[in-house]
Amino acid sequence: MGVVVPLSGQEAGQASIEPLLELTSKDMARVNEVILSHASSYVDMIPQLANHLINSGGKRLRPMVTVAASRMCAPCEGNDHVLLAAAVEFMHTATLLHDDVVDESDLRRGKPAARMIWGNQASVLVGDYLLGQAFKMMVNTKSLECLRILSDAASVIAEGEVMQLAAQKDITTTEDAYMKIIDAKTAALFSAAAEVGAAIAERPNEEQAALESFGRNLGVAFQLVDDGLDYSGKQALLGKETGDDFREGKITLPVILSYRRGSDQDREFWKLKLQEGHQEEGDLEHAISLMESHGAIEDTVARARHYGAIARDALAIFPGSDLKSAMISAVDFSIQRAH
Amino acid sequence: MGVVVPLSGQEAGQASIEPLLELTSKDMARVNEVILSHASSYVDMIPQLANHLINSGGKRLRPMVTVAASRMCAPCEGNDHVLLAAAVEFMHTATLLHDDVVDESDLRRGKPAARMIWGNQASVLVGDYLLGQAFKMMVNTKSLECLRILSDAASVIAEGEVMQLAAQKDITTTEDAYMKIIDAKTAALFSAAAEVGAAIAERPNEEQAALESFGRNLGVAFQLVDDGLDYSGKQALLGKETGDDFREGKITLPVILSYRRGSDQDREFWKLKLQEGHQEEGDLEHAISLMESHGAIEDTVARARHYGAIARDALAIFPGSDLKSAMISAVDFSIQRAH
Repeated sequence: MGVVVPLSGQEAGQASIEPLLELTSKDMARVNEVILSHASSYVDMIPQLANHLINSGGKRLRPMVTVAASRMCAPCEGNDHVLLAAAVEFMHTATLLHDDVVDESDLRRGKPAARMIWGNQASVLVGDYLLGQAFKMMVNTKSLECLRILSDAASVIAEGEVMQLAAQKDITTTEDAYMKIIDAKTAALFSAAAEVGAAIAERPNEEQAALESFGRNLGVAFQLVDDGLDYSGKQALLGKETGDDFREGKITLPVILSYRRGSDQDREFWKLKLQEGHQEEGDLEHAISLMESHGAIEDTVARARHYGAIARDALAIFPGSDLKSAMISAVDFSIQRAH
Repeated sequence: MGVVVPLSGQEAGQASIEPLLELTSKDMARVNEVILSHASSYVDMIPQLANHLINSGGKRLRPMVTVAASRMCAPCEGNDHVLLAAAVEFMHTATLLHDDVVDESDLRRGKPAARMIWGNQASVLVGDYLLGQAFKMMVNTKSLECLRILSDAASVIAEGEVMQLAAQKDITTTEDAYMKIIDAKTAALFSAAAEVGAAIAERPNEEQAALESFGRNLGVAFQLVDDGLDYSGKQALLGKETGDDFREGKITLPVILSYRRGSDQDREFWKLKLQEGHQEEGDLEHAISLMESHGAIEDTVARARHYGAIARDALAIFPGSDLKSAMISAVDFSIQRAH
């Protein structure tokens, strides 16, 4: 049985992705077409590999944020918001391809990672191709402001990934350092995905800043919950293996909290298993039991709830609408999936 | 003793990079500053790794082409041509970092490849970072046309690299297929590097097309000569090991010509060594002797001379100037370095 966490007053509300899925479905069908057409190439291996990942059942949360933010800001009669959403998804897909190579992952969304079928080399190069295609789509919108936002994000994401690599297997990583990493590697793209919605509509700075904040805080909450789920049985439902982060020696918040709250003996365990990589059968189970005894997963989700609240408040300046409610429900959903 | 190849009338002229180095030196000093400032990051590993490659003695031919093309088109009073040149060099550097991972190279310009010091993972991610920084610099020029040209090039380069990967170890690769690969993986960036010079100056289409053609043909000639040099003793002077391509099973024009012109027994040799990778001591020497007996390196350079001639003629529409002469000398130099 899952742990039932009572919602505080501010957090009460429908925790569901369904309203957002429904309100963005027409636009997302167009985004899908653009994605498929831009993943094509006369070089066979490119569409083969790209489509493997594109069709592997990701929820397309990031482009959905772009579409929703755009629609909240303007009637979106043209195609620009669709191009931007597709560009955001391509940036994300390129990152996943490179991530799998960097992390030496075998699985991605429950399927063999592309690198396991086509090799690391093709994964690196097709990632580069998709990034190039993403920039071509942005150029097609003719919006220098959107290009600025998304090229900034591209650099920051890579910085976050390098920071994560440097912190890997460093059990002394602080919570602050971890927050800096996820702000860069995950939240920067969510933030840009939302911000371009206001930028393409040429809305006032206040709205652009509000959506930037919405996206950033949603992204942080999303990553915190993801990192918690990696040590939870719920993970299997999302097509991932429990314990991937443990096996890769990733120092995420559940580990940081357990290490800091633990006894000397516990700390020796974390050091041995994650920093030095001496893992044996039963270690993951022991890690999870240590986390449970220190409330580390619970508190990781509690931290996520904090950022979720900021994301919701960021939207306060926008008038009430079905779309705004759907975006808030999606924030709640991102957090509730932990339970 | 090197083989002395007599120059035909059209090809006569100073074959030197010196005039171009001299005429672009002031701008290139500024390009260097921009490169160093944009390779920085608060994430330590990024400038460490980036500077390793940036300071490793590349000739910066591509950004020099951008500076020269820009100066031929306009007085260049601002900073845009400098930003574009730096962006071009970053795109190139990112490609080198990813290439070394894909090719599993140990050396780059006579020094250990970055991946040998910081690992494949960091090389992939810092490459991504530099690509993001390149796009940021382009955005700073506010030229959508330059963004279009360079983002197109980014996609095409990646396509070329994937094509090369697919052709790797395929001894039946045709000369046409090989030409398509180098047109994409190498010539596309030279071409974009030159074309943005006219685009940023908002010169007529004719001039933009002329510089695009100049860059493309220079790039093809450059790569052909590079591929010839890989089987020549001259290679050591350029800080590369002779035979890198042979060891990596790359099917370049000297191999394609030798395979096609050779006896059945020769073909068995090429198949065994490059396609199946059964290499032993003395194989490289035998490969070079087969190439010499079929004039394969000579003829690779002869092909390069053909593209060099087109590059020179592409500049014909521009009035005579020291800069134009210097660009033509640089083309000749790119080819003459084979001797």
